[in-house]
Amino acid sequence: MSDGNIIEPKILKGFRDSMPETEIRKKAIIAKLEHHFSSYGFVPIDTPVLEYTDVLLGKGGGETDKQIFRFKDNGERDVAMRFDLTVPFARFMAAHLSEVPLPFKRFHIEKVWRGENPQKGRFREFTQCDFDIVGVDDAEADFEILSMMDSSFGMLGIQGYSFHVAHRGLFNAFLASIGVENKTVEILRTVDKLRKIGSDETGTELKTITGDQGKADAIMNFIQKPQDEDFLTTLQRLSGLAGGEKIHTKRMQRIYGYLSDAGIAGHFVYDPSITRGLDYYTGIVYETFLDGLDQFGSVCSGGRYNNLASLYTKQELPGVGSSIGLDRLIAALTELKSPLLAASSSADVIILAMDESLRSWYHQLARLMREAGLRVDEYLPEGKKLGAQFKYAELQRIPFALTCGTNEHDGGKVTLKDLRNRESKQMISLEEAIETIQKGK
Amino acid sequence: MSDGNIIEPKILKGFRDSMPETEIRKKAIIAKLEHHFSSYGFVPIDTPVLEYTDVLLGKGGGETDKQIFRFKDNGERDVAMRFDLTVPFARFMAAHLSEVPLPFKRFHIEKVWRGENPQKGRFREFTQCDFDIVGVDDAEADFEILSMMDSSFGMLGIQGYSFHVAHRGLFNAFLASIGVENKTVEILRTVDKLRKIGSDETGTELKTITGDQGKADAIMNFIQKPQDEDFLTTLQRLSGLAGGEKIHTKRMQRIYGYLSDAGIAGHFVYDPSITRGLDYYTGIVYETFLDGLDQFGSVCSGGRYNNLASLYTKQELPGVGSSIGLDRLIAALTELKSPLLAASSSADVIILAMDESLRSWYHQLARLMREAGLRVDEYLPEGKKLGAQFKYAELQRIPFALTCGTNEHDGGKVTLKDLRNRESKQMISLEEAIETIQKGK
Repeated sequence: MSDGNIIEPKILKGFRDSMPETEIRKKAIIAKLEHHFSSYGFVPIDTPVLEYTDVLLGKGGGETDKQIFRFKDNGERDVAMRFDLTVPFARFMAAHLSEVPLPFKRFHIEKVWRGENPQKGRFREFTQCDFDIVGVDDAEADFEILSMMDSSFGMLGIQGYSFHVAHRGLFNAFLASIGVENKTVEILRTVDKLRKIGSDETGTELKTITGDQGKADAIMNFIQKPQDEDFLTTLQRLSGLAGGEKIHTKRMQRIYGYLSDAGIAGHFVYDPSITRGLDYYTGIVYETFLDGLDQFGSVCSGGRYNNLASLYTKQELPGVGSSIGLDRLIAALTELKSPLLAASSSADVIILAMDESLRSWYHQLARLMREAGLRVDEYLPEGKKLGAQFKYAELQRIPFALTCGTNEHDGGKVTLKDLRNRESKQMISLEEAIETIQKGK
Repeated sequence: MSDGNIIEPKILKGFRDSMPETEIRKKAIIAKLEHHFSSYGFVPIDTPVLEYTDVLLGKGGGETDKQIFRFKDNGERDVAMRFDLTVPFARFMAAHLSEVPLPFKRFHIEKVWRGENPQKGRFREFTQCDFDIVGVDDAEADFEILSMMDSSFGMLGIQGYSFHVAHRGLFNAFLASIGVENKTVEILRTVDKLRKIGSDETGTELKTITGDQGKADAIMNFIQKPQDEDFLTTLQRLSGLAGGEKIHTKRMQRIYGYLSDAGIAGHFVYDPSITRGLDYYTGIVYETFLDGLDQFGSVCSGGRYNNLASLYTKQELPGVGSSIGLDRLIAALTELKSPLLAASSSADVIILAMDESLRSWYHQLARLMREAGLRVDEYLPEGKKLGAQFKYAELQRIPFALTCGTNEHDGGKVTLKDLRNRESKQMISLEEAIETIQKGK
């Protein structure tokens, strides 16, 4: 490699490097979520980043089609990078039906890729966090997903959040009762945009779709609820509009009962405008909003579907699941100045190279402090002045510096400096230094 | 989605799904490595999976060229999926030179993709674990990498392992002393194959390359050492062959001194046949072998290079680093029947659905046990017989089942069954159940 012909170290539009301070935080949040999901008996899986295009897209594909990274591999196979974690999960379940016990509760936190035009906060490479329960269609599973969503947000230390839930079965029954069930897909997509385009435009679009002002008004009436109407009242009213109390109403009442008994019902709002756009949802659907952060949209969305893997198997796999947009969640946590995202140091303490002849002793001190559970950096370059060494420690935000010259070494002692307030403890024992760092890091 | 047209849920050749029991173990090993690297002050980074092809391949590429997943994206950009973590790291360093303090110690554990023909234990998608120290060229950094490699293997509970190290500078000096320095690249590649092709064929190839039996013999003599020759003696002897004691010899002596002082020199062997093939190494090089598992080859390899990012910047960035082939390491740990890879359960305890009217109480019990740190599954399907519920628990390898009927509920008690020995504790308090599970899980 010669220096004559430098290549610009540029990265692709919509992609980005993750710097240490970002990556440390992201890993910490993922580890917390994984640990939390495990406490509910959920297990992790992984699937290939590349799959056959016809496996990922099924028959046609539609919108996502244009947005995927798709190509011919060296063996002329038509392949594509996964654009979500749901389709690979459906393929996984069909492929491993005989191996996994049902119900199967899995989480999957990984990157996906979409070629959509990058906007503020949207990237072509991003991380999703999916969790689903498949193989069971009852209120217990619905409640478990909602309960785990609620405790996840609590566990992350987020103060104000609300889950907006609705029931797609109830909405479909209502659409049938006014005779527009053949327009369900278009109506769902339009209603799904309500937050974005406002109620006037939604109403206009609905009139275009249904060709009937009265029906458009009826839908607008269904999807908008009085601000202070409580969950069960809304549910009763909508059930009436949809033609009476149905199995869906009973399911929702039961779920709400569990939420109440668990003391978390206050986080849940019945919001009939939630439809999730996609036509595979058949039961409860939900979106999650953080107080005062409407601009981020929903940070956790999903619902119940009656058949996950119908593309790949004749076995019916009902399920309920949810997906957290991890990058969006981290952006929101940043906005909330969450302590989870506090500036992170690369180490708890650095051993400075005060005397080159004592390097082997410094290695030993490092080993002992690591065994005590500390993160220990050693200043590695040889022959540098202490000033440069302190500057490095500060750039790395390391809170403590340990020095040991001949005096300390001969007396079996060390000197510890707190780099935040410049206070020193001179000639102390290593044990005392470790204790000070553990308390003050 | 209709059932009429089922797509086979097949995956690409050389790719695979990761089942929960595999994924749980892989994540556990990665978490242990990350925690361990952090204890040395190393920090994580991440880079995009897709990059501009000319950024990844530089001027030409050679062998890897044919093996990469490369294509035109929707914007007609020539892009490729990363085939290792070294090239993206070089590009990262050049792009962020002003942002990261030097020396910079980073780790990166992520997937890479190569289109090579899949063999046993080789896949087109695999996980690498790289760690490097850049911005410093001295014995301290060399020692820190070796020391961290050693403690990583120890921390993973691996009993027998040895690091085969050599010095490329010394080998290059030797090649110059016999006048074949212009054939260095071919000679390196041939010597690198010694383990695979044996000494006869290596000797024959070396004669072809050098065109001189005497020189081929001299090289064979240099790269083969008497079995029981100790580290420093080998080093002295090779230094003599290379034309006397050089700066390289002093560096190696110093590193060996640190290894001895740290009490880990016994894991290190001077093995002059180690060259690492690639011509960018300039100092110490190493490979790692597990006792009795030669068939896995080296599970951790690397060395010192004098200039990481010369493709992208004129600033010299010397460094030293290492790469663990994580899939290969896991395969080896499986072979060693490592306790790290013991069969994993999806939960510590399952609450069985004995009485559907008590579901809300079961939710409450689950919450309390989770708060005590347990992983708790609840049996979710409604109306199933207890036999089916126990069967599910066994398939999931869950060690304990908790039941609670009206009697238990009314008396504020539970019944706990250890599913491994079928022993029951009837009508005990929840606290006692939690304690039993914590001790016995």
